[in-house]
Amino acid sequence: MRQILVLGAGKSAGYLIHKLLEDAVDEDWFVTVGDVDLATARECVKNHPRGTAIEFDVNDSSHRETQIANSDVVVNMLAPAFQGMLAVDCIHSGKPLVSVSYQDQVIRDLGPDAHRKGVLLLTELGLDPGIDHMSAMAMIQKIRSEGGRVRLFCSYGSGVPAADEPSNPLRYVITWNPRNVVMGGEDGAQYLEDGRIKIVPHHEVFHHTWPVEVPGIGTMEAYPNRDSLSYMETFGLDDVRTMVRGTLRYPGWSETWAQIVKLGLPNETIRISDLSDRTYREVIEMFLPTNNEDPEIEQRLARYLRISPTGQIMEKLRWLGLFSEEKTGCDGETAARMMAELIQRKLPLEKGRRDTVILLHKLEVDYPGTDREPERILSTMICNGEPNGFTAMSKTVGLPTAIAVRLLLRGEIPLSGAAIPTHPSIYTPILEELQEEGIAFTETTEPITRG
Amino acid sequence: MRQILVLGAGKSAGYLIHKLLEDAVDEDWFVTVGDVDLATARECVKNHPRGTAIEFDVNDSSHRETQIANSDVVVNMLAPAFQGMLAVDCIHSGKPLVSVSYQDQVIRDLGPDAHRKGVLLLTELGLDPGIDHMSAMAMIQKIRSEGGRVRLFCSYGSGVPAADEPSNPLRYVITWNPRNVVMGGEDGAQYLEDGRIKIVPHHEVFHHTWPVEVPGIGTMEAYPNRDSLSYMETFGLDDVRTMVRGTLRYPGWSETWAQIVKLGLPNETIRISDLSDRTYREVIEMFLPTNNEDPEIEQRLARYLRISPTGQIMEKLRWLGLFSEEKTGCDGETAARMMAELIQRKLPLEKGRRDTVILLHKLEVDYPGTDREPERILSTMICNGEPNGFTAMSKTVGLPTAIAVRLLLRGEIPLSGAAIPTHPSIYTPILEELQEEGIAFTETTEPITRG
Repeated sequence: MRQILVLGAGKSAGYLIHKLLEDAVDEDWFVTVGDVDLATARECVKNHPRGTAIEFDVNDSSHRETQIANSDVVVNMLAPAFQGMLAVDCIHSGKPLVSVSYQDQVIRDLGPDAHRKGVLLLTELGLDPGIDHMSAMAMIQKIRSEGGRVRLFCSYGSGVPAADEPSNPLRYVITWNPRNVVMGGEDGAQYLEDGRIKIVPHHEVFHHTWPVEVPGIGTMEAYPNRDSLSYMETFGLDDVRTMVRGTLRYPGWSETWAQIVKLGLPNETIRISDLSDRTYREVIEMFLPTNNEDPEIEQRLARYLRISPTGQIMEKLRWLGLFSEEKTGCDGETAARMMAELIQRKLPLEKGRRDTVILLHKLEVDYPGTDREPERILSTMICNGEPNGFTAMSKTVGLPTAIAVRLLLRGEIPLSGAAIPTHPSIYTPILEELQEEGIAFTETTEPITRG
Repeated sequence: MRQILVLGAGKSAGYLIHKLLEDAVDEDWFVTVGDVDLATARECVKNHPRGTAIEFDVNDSSHRETQIANSDVVVNMLAPAFQGMLAVDCIHSGKPLVSVSYQDQVIRDLGPDAHRKGVLLLTELGLDPGIDHMSAMAMIQKIRSEGGRVRLFCSYGSGVPAADEPSNPLRYVITWNPRNVVMGGEDGAQYLEDGRIKIVPHHEVFHHTWPVEVPGIGTMEAYPNRDSLSYMETFGLDDVRTMVRGTLRYPGWSETWAQIVKLGLPNETIRISDLSDRTYREVIEMFLPTNNEDPEIEQRLARYLRISPTGQIMEKLRWLGLFSEEKTGCDGETAARMMAELIQRKLPLEKGRRDTVILLHKLEVDYPGTDREPERILSTMICNGEPNGFTAMSKTVGLPTAIAVRLLLRGEIPLSGAAIPTHPSIYTPILEELQEEGIAFTETTEPITRG
């Protein structure tokens, strides 16, 4: 019996664990699910005879090493910061790592070591990053085989409440790690626009939006997602003139979040004393300049941020509870942690409601040396969650990961070292199976008529 | 013979190594100096019979572990990021670590482990952090012994060109790791102002300045330095109403650096392709919004930042070379690295010139239950470098470290675990010896007449 160790049983792990357990008898697997909160892990395993839940503290190195040494594959669903730690242990024990987080510098640095030991560190295997790369890679390979040259590549990902259901004033729901929502854009972003590299710092990312039409949903807003340029090499897009990866939200999110960034709330370093006993209003006051004339806090905040004290942004900040006299009760010590707990509480997916996951690729392609017209290709994947069941986020993050684990344990991924799923041996079977499960892309092509 | 391992032979390490070698025969020491650049290490050791220079790559773990295992004390002069790595090896080998960097979360987390093994991790042992804490602690202990209560604590540190000599338009010279100058304020800052906690994000730190009178120098500007509040506990200042640690510059530095932060140049994450082959002007263009009307880059930058295109800030940015058509030749991949190399080249300490190190504490104290008047105590230390000799920075960083090494090897520091030099067994002998070497504080006290 092969041993699968899943670390992290948070929001987006439910469906992954469900799928692994579903296949466990046929494939002769046993699935161990570790989480810092044992109850969360148990909820995912549901007493399945082929699974067990364990309490798992990633910082307990001896327990971590033992668990990894006893497994055949490690699946990382923990926060990005812990990925490197697991990778080191995986290399040490000769066990492959499958992860939904980004391939960061730590993983890149460990790549050669992993390769020497024949260990695969396969990251970016969820939705975004994950399905987005796989589907893009499949499109690009097809275009290339037809002699096409990609000139414009825009790829958008998103997880939001379903468009046709009421949600909350921010029109956003937390279906994945709220920490990542709070720290979104923290390293700034980089993209290519008509041949020009553009770099945007954290305090500008959410001011830097543009509209995107999503078929069947309507107009959304996009902000630039991290380093788009690093994918030029990944995808082999040498001739591209515009290369953007973006995140989609319903209009209004970014103008509000830009103010939260301007205030400085996404800060994971400065420790606020007695945070749990302070009110939100008290904490927000810390981020405002002192003013001895002491007008009302909302007025002062609006003046400091230069937003209207009576406008919609202000209304959303108020609705979030930033001026509330309630104590934060925060489990951590930083404003970022307080915000993560706040949005988790204020922006839940309500009972009976669905979330929607969107991936959208817009490519412009020409065919040099032929008389084929340049084309614009739009490829869209929209996946809805099940009311009171698995979220679209959990399905789209979990399914490719579960498929990758199966491929790996069957010996069908002939790779080692640091990899992301841009190799056909990984993305072809995964995309096929996603389609069978209803996670499919709709593609339209139209000629570009140049003015 | 006791073995001292000094890691890092950069700008501020010269005097430290000089002092250790000076005492090496009397104390029966041998000093090994490791640097990634062997020539730099050799320059510090200067063929001294009690010293040797080695090439040292901190990422070569087996070499690192061997060197540490063979030493009696490890002195860390490397960049802050490597401190934790060394601490882990020190605990493993049972060797004490002496370091000039901040006690970061990694060191705090390793503290209990170090304590169990009887290993001392003594950090913050340079100038700032270092002499500033030691002198503050000595002041506070004296005040406390007289029944005083500290109500206001402002502590400033600085390393700048000598006030009476011409320097450059920014009136700043690089006498320590330029990376730390570029990333200054990156985590924001926190302080206490009249009982109110204030938190300032990175993009506001350099806008958030105030004037400070320095005896013998004149008016300087201060910006808040990291988390001032964390030192309330360190110093036992429970009743303090205002608690600020600040960094001093000559007026004009901060308004210029604020624009560099606003542009987003202090970014260590986004990798810029072919950075060494690009001109500074090209790189700056990446940080500006696209404008197809294409006026001249300086005009566009000024409009974007909302600074005067003909003013002094613009003049300084131009003087720094940000609009130069010269290639960066940058050794690294990020804008932060480019800026570090640029300021290192543009802001050197010129031959024959001196730098000045300033520490200034301003305390307000009352004496509850007595009729002694409240007092304002000003304590100032000004140290000038030697023309063509050691810099004031190198002396003030190196001397306390060298003294701590001697105390430690003589068995006169009865501590283990994570510590900073706020224990009298450390700061008393160090402050005494600093005074003998001319690094002395001048203290004035005046009564506070309350309006």
